[in-house]
Amino acid sequence: MSTSTKWLNEVKWDENGLVPVIAQEASTGDVLMFAWMNREALQRTAETGNAIYWSRSRRKLWHKGEESGHVQKVVELRIDCDNDVVLMKVEQVGGIACHTGRHSCFFQKYLADGRWETVEPVLKDPKDIYS
Amino acid sequence: MSTSTKWLNEVKWDENGLVPVIAQEASTGDVLMFAWMNREALQRTAETGNAIYWSRSRRKLWHKGEESGHVQKVVELRIDCDNDVVLMKVEQVGGIACHTGRHSCFFQKYLADGRWETVEPVLKDPKDIYS
Repeated sequence: MSTSTKWLNEVKWDENGLVPVIAQEASTGDVLMFAWMNREALQRTAETGNAIYWSRSRRKLWHKGEESGHVQKVVELRIDCDNDVVLMKVEQVGGIACHTGRHSCFFQKYLADGRWETVEPVLKDPKDIYS
Repeated sequence: MSTSTKWLNEVKWDENGLVPVIAQEASTGDVLMFAWMNREALQRTAETGNAIYWSRSRRKLWHKGEESGHVQKVVELRIDCDNDVVLMKVEQVGGIACHTGRHSCFFQKYLADGRWETVEPVLKDPKDIYS
């Protein structure tokens, strides 16, 4: 690759070699999801312009949208003051980030009487997404 | 307390008893910062309406703004599809979330030539914040 990897060295990877990533929809400001990247995932995300995470459960690179088609196109990458959290502004293809078929993964709202309530609609049945 | 703590039991705390928290400015949608809460921090955040985090470095509760005055008033709490990440919409008192005196902690932007560049101004000198 032509660009320096100094910017990757500047990331403060955690004890597992990962960095937390917040995906935010560029056009609306909606926070869509939260996931993790390792060094290779972040490098390839920057190179390809598509979000590639590290799946901690499957222990492999996870090309967001590889099954669903709900790819995230990177609009902007930012890092925080401690260099240990990434904020990624994206265009969410299909308008659905969540595996439940919702726009955002943050669809449960805390109510003052002490419970989480689902407040966002399912836009597409997961059966029709992963088929 | 009068409300049930069932909602706290529904949070999937990590192996350290923590949950990642994304703080987003309610009025602008700007992602301000990322931090952690333990069970007590989340409970007291909900009860008091002010953001109280768990400081992993100091290993104690951290009342955001206790020194700077830059308190975060909770507008809404959400949790994600896996119940393991909290999104907190806040009103940022003073308009400054970052200890560097900037609006948001995410002030470094990735540039295509392979470096992070500071793109947001310091609104208040940290010397004048923490004095």
